[in-house]
Amino acid sequence: MQETGGSRYETLVRSLSANGVDLETVEARLRAQTVETPSWGYGNSGTRFATFPRPGVPRNPFEKLEDAAQVHKHTGICPSVAIHIPWDEVGDYDKLQEHAHSLGLRIGAVNPNLFQDPDYKLGSVCHPDPRVRRKAIDHLVECVGIGRRVDSSLLSLWFADGTNYAGQDSFVQRRQRMIECLSEVYESMPRTMEMLVEYKLYEPAFYHTDLADWGTALLVCQRLGHRAKVLVDLGHHAQGVNVEHIVATLLDEGRLGGFHFNNRKYGDDDLIVGSIEPFELFLIYVQLAEGEPGGEHSIAYMIDQSHNIEPKIEAMLLSVCNLQESYAKALLVNREALQAAQLSGDVLGAHRIMMEAYSTDVRPLCAKVREDLGASADPISAFCDGDYSKQVMEARRDGAQAAWQ
Amino acid sequence: MQETGGSRYETLVRSLSANGVDLETVEARLRAQTVETPSWGYGNSGTRFATFPRPGVPRNPFEKLEDAAQVHKHTGICPSVAIHIPWDEVGDYDKLQEHAHSLGLRIGAVNPNLFQDPDYKLGSVCHPDPRVRRKAIDHLVECVGIGRRVDSSLLSLWFADGTNYAGQDSFVQRRQRMIECLSEVYESMPRTMEMLVEYKLYEPAFYHTDLADWGTALLVCQRLGHRAKVLVDLGHHAQGVNVEHIVATLLDEGRLGGFHFNNRKYGDDDLIVGSIEPFELFLIYVQLAEGEPGGEHSIAYMIDQSHNIEPKIEAMLLSVCNLQESYAKALLVNREALQAAQLSGDVLGAHRIMMEAYSTDVRPLCAKVREDLGASADPISAFCDGDYSKQVMEARRDGAQAAWQ
Amino acid sequence: MQETGGSRYETLVRSLSANGVDLETVEARLRAQTVETPSWGYGNSGTRFATFPRPGVPRNPFEKLEDAAQVHKHTGICPSVAIHIPWDEVGDYDKLQEHAHSLGLRIGAVNPNLFQDPDYKLGSVCHPDPRVRRKAIDHLVECVGIGRRVDSSLLSLWFADGTNYAGQDSFVQRRQRMIECLSEVYESMPRTMEMLVEYKLYEPAFYHTDLADWGTALLVCQRLGHRAKVLVDLGHHAQGVNVEHIVATLLDEGRLGGFHFNNRKYGDDDLIVGSIEPFELFLIYVQLAEGEPGGEHSIAYMIDQSHNIEPKIEAMLLSVCNLQESYAKALLVNREALQAAQLSGDVLGAHRIMMEAYSTDVRPLCAKVREDLGASADPISAFCDGDYSKQVMEARRDGAQAAWQ
Amino acid sequence: MQETGGSRYETLVRSLSANGVDLETVEARLRAQTVETPSWGYGNSGTRFATFPRPGVPRNPFEKLEDAAQVHKHTGICPSVAIHIPWDEVGDYDKLQEHAHSLGLRIGAVNPNLFQDPDYKLGSVCHPDPRVRRKAIDHLVECVGIGRRVDSSLLSLWFADGTNYAGQDSFVQRRQRMIECLSEVYESMPRTMEMLVEYKLYEPAFYHTDLADWGTALLVCQRLGHRAKVLVDLGHHAQGVNVEHIVATLLDEGRLGGFHFNNRKYGDDDLIVGSIEPFELFLIYVQLAEGEPGGEHSIAYMIDQSHNIEPKIEAMLLSVCNLQESYAKALLVNREALQAAQLSGDVLGAHRIMMEAYSTDVRPLCAKVREDLGASADPISAFCDGDYSKQVMEARRDGAQAAWQ
Repeated sequence: MQETGGSRYETLVRSLSANGVDLETVEARLRAQTVETPSWGYGNSGTRFATFPRPGVPRNPFEKLEDAAQVHKHTGICPSVAIHIPWDEVGDYDKLQEHAHSLGLRIGAVNPNLFQDPDYKLGSVCHPDPRVRRKAIDHLVECVGIGRRVDSSLLSLWFADGTNYAGQDSFVQRRQRMIECLSEVYESMPRTMEMLVEYKLYEPAFYHTDLADWGTALLVCQRLGHRAKVLVDLGHHAQGVNVEHIVATLLDEGRLGGFHFNNRKYGDDDLIVGSIEPFELFLIYVQLAEGEPGGEHSIAYMIDQSHNIEPKIEAMLLSVCNLQESYAKALLVNREALQAAQLSGDVLGAHRIMMEAYSTDVRPLCAKVREDLGASADPISAFCDGDYSKQVMEARRDGAQAAWQ
Repeated sequence: MQETGGSRYETLVRSLSANGVDLETVEARLRAQTVETPSWGYGNSGTRFATFPRPGVPRNPFEKLEDAAQVHKHTGICPSVAIHIPWDEVGDYDKLQEHAHSLGLRIGAVNPNLFQDPDYKLGSVCHPDPRVRRKAIDHLVECVGIGRRVDSSLLSLWFADGTNYAGQDSFVQRRQRMIECLSEVYESMPRTMEMLVEYKLYEPAFYHTDLADWGTALLVCQRLGHRAKVLVDLGHHAQGVNVEHIVATLLDEGRLGGFHFNNRKYGDDDLIVGSIEPFELFLIYVQLAEGEPGGEHSIAYMIDQSHNIEPKIEAMLLSVCNLQESYAKALLVNREALQAAQLSGDVLGAHRIMMEAYSTDVRPLCAKVREDLGASADPISAFCDGDYSKQVMEARRDGAQAAWQ
Repeated sequence: MQETGGSRYETLVRSLSANGVDLETVEARLRAQTVETPSWGYGNSGTRFATFPRPGVPRNPFEKLEDAAQVHKHTGICPSVAIHIPWDEVGDYDKLQEHAHSLGLRIGAVNPNLFQDPDYKLGSVCHPDPRVRRKAIDHLVECVGIGRRVDSSLLSLWFADGTNYAGQDSFVQRRQRMIECLSEVYESMPRTMEMLVEYKLYEPAFYHTDLADWGTALLVCQRLGHRAKVLVDLGHHAQGVNVEHIVATLLDEGRLGGFHFNNRKYGDDDLIVGSIEPFELFLIYVQLAEGEPGGEHSIAYMIDQSHNIEPKIEAMLLSVCNLQESYAKALLVNREALQAAQLSGDVLGAHRIMMEAYSTDVRPLCAKVREDLGASADPISAFCDGDYSKQVMEARRDGAQAAWQ
Repeated sequence: MQETGGSRYETLVRSLSANGVDLETVEARLRAQTVETPSWGYGNSGTRFATFPRPGVPRNPFEKLEDAAQVHKHTGICPSVAIHIPWDEVGDYDKLQEHAHSLGLRIGAVNPNLFQDPDYKLGSVCHPDPRVRRKAIDHLVECVGIGRRVDSSLLSLWFADGTNYAGQDSFVQRRQRMIECLSEVYESMPRTMEMLVEYKLYEPAFYHTDLADWGTALLVCQRLGHRAKVLVDLGHHAQGVNVEHIVATLLDEGRLGGFHFNNRKYGDDDLIVGSIEPFELFLIYVQLAEGEPGGEHSIAYMIDQSHNIEPKIEAMLLSVCNLQESYAKALLVNREALQAAQLSGDVLGAHRIMMEAYSTDVRPLCAKVREDLGASADPISAFCDGDYSKQVMEARRDGAQAAWQ
């Protein structure tokens, strides 16, 4: 909208205040929100059918950080960047960290890779061959070390482990192998580090996946210790599953470690978060706004998307704005009225309180918060109006672009 | 929100006008929108596990019309009511129609029932026994007659036909039986009448349904003639299916007959439309706003919901408001900018134009339109502030409440 | 097939023996297999659209037991019958038990009903109103008492608890209410009794179900104690979920309490087990054949089906035969060869060992086992050749037939 | 099984004959069955996460044909090989065809590639840019030419066309572009050539796919002409969709062009056909065995699998055996008895007739048919006992292996 955000913000404030919203608290929580972007989201990605290169894409971890800095500059809430080893392997991690700091960023979660080496064709920590499991453990412990070096408190684990055919391997033996391997890794972590354990229904394994749902992941975490927590990726569930209910349950168990935000209509489509089911995203944030713990071991809010056909930095900016707007709407829910309606069995009344918040156009509020943080009222326009894209297309013409593989 | 709709409306108008929205046209189209409510939506309904009665529920077709009149009174866009035979069977249809007229309503689509008589246990128009098929045809022709009597131009057909076990019956023979039966019914219709053919993935048949998807329904319509069209019920698809794409295809083929609006998260949940996937509803309306034909044979926009645990009139009011808001947002899409972005391959630009419309809080606009129509700015509050519920709870204490069966 | 089972059995024995199958052990395990049939499977059932009555259907719990006795007579492996309170409420449970014993049966799991009383419209043990929760607890404790009386060691719990609309109630508060209520029930159980906790993705609740998956059910069981275990109903999962993997995981955790066998193509279709996905059933039995514990606290193998259009006793006979054949095939899997192939990473070799067992026609083997147990080689034909159906159609002409409600 | 197939075959014959099966006809139809294997199924394939190379994989179209010849040698029913352009582009197609003939093979369907060139990032025949559509048409017409040259009568089309984000492009305009482009291609085909039009729910497009289901594909075929037919890939449907019902409907409309056989549990997993849902495969063949047309324009039975972790030739052999066994079982269904049971409404009786055929162990029958054709009784063992694998691992050590890209 072209009208000044200012006057729309004021109208919104009047309207919200009239409804008893404590706007100061809402804005304070929005200013405190953070979202971590992934280094690999700035490189090329694709499907099994094709990966289409894009001009200006980074060629190394340092350039990925530079792109990430653009996202932080315009949104004000993306100060950290997840890295992926070996895609972001560098000789000197101090240098990488210094580069991050110089850009106003820090290194976030460390993500090992246990799915590309041909040795992992039949699995990594679940592989029937102890040699492969040992190799996997060594890589995980190496990543713990990298985490120490870059002051990261998060080891974020996703396993491609699974089978393609009934009978291919033993479910139970694979599970026991995983627990044994991860116990060794868990022991190697410093006390300040948490292990995030991600689950996924399927892909790349097509008959069974060793950590197929939140339940299998949680059971592994229970065996490991209280610093092992479950990571929820929005695209990793069977169709129809109520994700906000899982989020609430994990929160209540003290085992919600973090998110990989994205969106899907079909499989693990890895689209821009909020582009397919914005209402689900809002409902997840309603749970988070109520149940997220304070303190140091907070929940890690991370994006994990594949921008196959769209420009990557713009896609990341849009994703962050969608997360901010969802959180903002969730903070507008009138909790006292909601609780009262729920306890009195007023089905429609309670539902309408939710919808009241969801229907509100919070864009002026989010623009205001971003401006308060020194970022952009309209991040995508601001980015496009700048010449960063043009500069990097020029500067990054030679050399191999970063990609998933 | 408690603030006066008026000032919020004006802010919205300024903002939209600044973006080049032709508000006059938008409001005119909103005033022309109509939604048909179903007589059975005012009676008791439930699941196979239980049906819970609610005080004040109508006991006969006349009382259902009275409830429907409340919905029209407060929304201004629900002048017609679908009936279901034999649930709404009355001795004197003239009297029923007069009652409707006296309430400012008219009778809409006539819906036959081919699924409750024990004769239909294995199907109706697809049944292996010609006696049962004859009975089904006779009932359908009877409903054509009722339609003539009540000046309805729509025969709305849903078939529970299908099988529960592989081998139970022949797919092909059942299909040919259906085409033969419906041809006879089609011939019996006056030229002003259309036949709407609904499809459904499953339930109550659990192995195969004779009209399982829009393709099977469309093929039958092609055989019958151009006044046979497909009816889309939002809850009748497999998970993941892109319903707005189906809507666009049927529009392009000139075979979109109408809708049964509702919402679902799992199966055919028959929840309030817009309560689970409001974004999908918006995207459907984006197709409709662009492609809906004018003239007399327009698309029939009908609600088909089961209000199992919530108050029924309020649920209907909320549904109508959700349809109105979705249509309003769809009308705000900047079509020229969208087309330009699409043709230039600007993926994110085109998507953001859609989101711009979706993010807008159109409630003040819809309130204004309703007031212009002489209805209520806030239909649910207005209804609840009135004493209709109290009155009917008192008046309808005795006798059997209307229900699905 | 008309050929004598005998010669086909001998050919099969020769072939299996040549492949090193220890047929004696296989037959012994098949003779030890038991399947519990549900009293409600002998009454009328239907969908929300219709329930079609069938001549000869039982009118009370005593007659249901008589039908169940027919299933045991012809299969030899169905000595127990699950009951449902209040559908099977009788004044004198000693008399019911005596009747069972006189028929060669015993009473199995006791199933409370917390979904039909209008008080449970918004839930039972999760209901916001403490009065309703108290009522639910009292009913559960009453069922524990009935269990004691009829020497049942199983309290089998399914909850319809959930919500239909976002915001309707608090996920977390509902969860805590459930845990609190069930703790009281658990404490009331005798030490010999186990509590089976069933989960279900959806229906009759359509937005969220309090126990939506095996993970939520298992967490509740962990809180209650080691005699609380998870019950797996084959129709209660999202599409695509690998059920045999869940079975293996629960076995490995020592928390697999039992099954509600049936089959589905879409939702919770409650069709005859093995009629839609016989291969999945085999794969489940492969896990069971390997992991099922011996001793007194064994797994409860129960059928839970709705025979909406087919004859009920015949449907139950077919279901039991399908379970027997699946178990037989699972017992034929060459475990040593499988383990060797798995450990060596021979993907196709391991898979083909499974398929070798699945492709085998085990009907002669199962017929032999049934004959050894004094039952029928061909249960359905034997039942149909008898005059039981005719007799009960005659004898049960008057009075109300048993049904779900 | 180690026992001689011979004696098991004789027992089976006795048993089937006793049940009135006309074994001569069954065996004749089995000998007439053909399955086309895809050239790309012999090369490396993978997921978006990784492709794992396998020693001995072909390096060019000539070597792929040699592998295919092994499959035909051992099964006797795979005389043709589908090719993919440009993966199988060669300078001299006469030479390729001669090579095929020298191996006892012929070239089957020609498959264009409209998804890997960066120009096709936003689509091919649906692309908003007419330049890209022209390029796509030219490639398709080129493939028609290649088809003429290699005496192929099939142009097999799959389109990756679709969008990833709501609003990205116009459904209707894309549809009209496709029809326009394909009309030109259709006109260029010789009268002996058929166009097969494949549909797919999703992937690589994640918001909408232009040909998302059989209905959209059929409508396009209707516009093109009677030599345009629908191709069914078993992995391209939403979960729960009844594929055998679609097959029957397309057969009845005379528009079933062919199959891409494979299997899936989740998305388009491209696993070995019959490895996940063997019963579904049988049910599809039951429709085919009844409805497949004779004559020259028969249905094209083709395999389309990705053997990501298993040996490729063995996987193809197993796939062909699974197709043969499914067809054999389908041919054993007692059609007269089935029809009688269906017409009399005998639900369980009809279902049991199907299960009777499915439960039969037809492996001895298939082994006999293969031997009659001069192929192997046990194809996989025969292949593994030979030294082909060893030879090609040796011979194909250098050079780039064939893969999808």
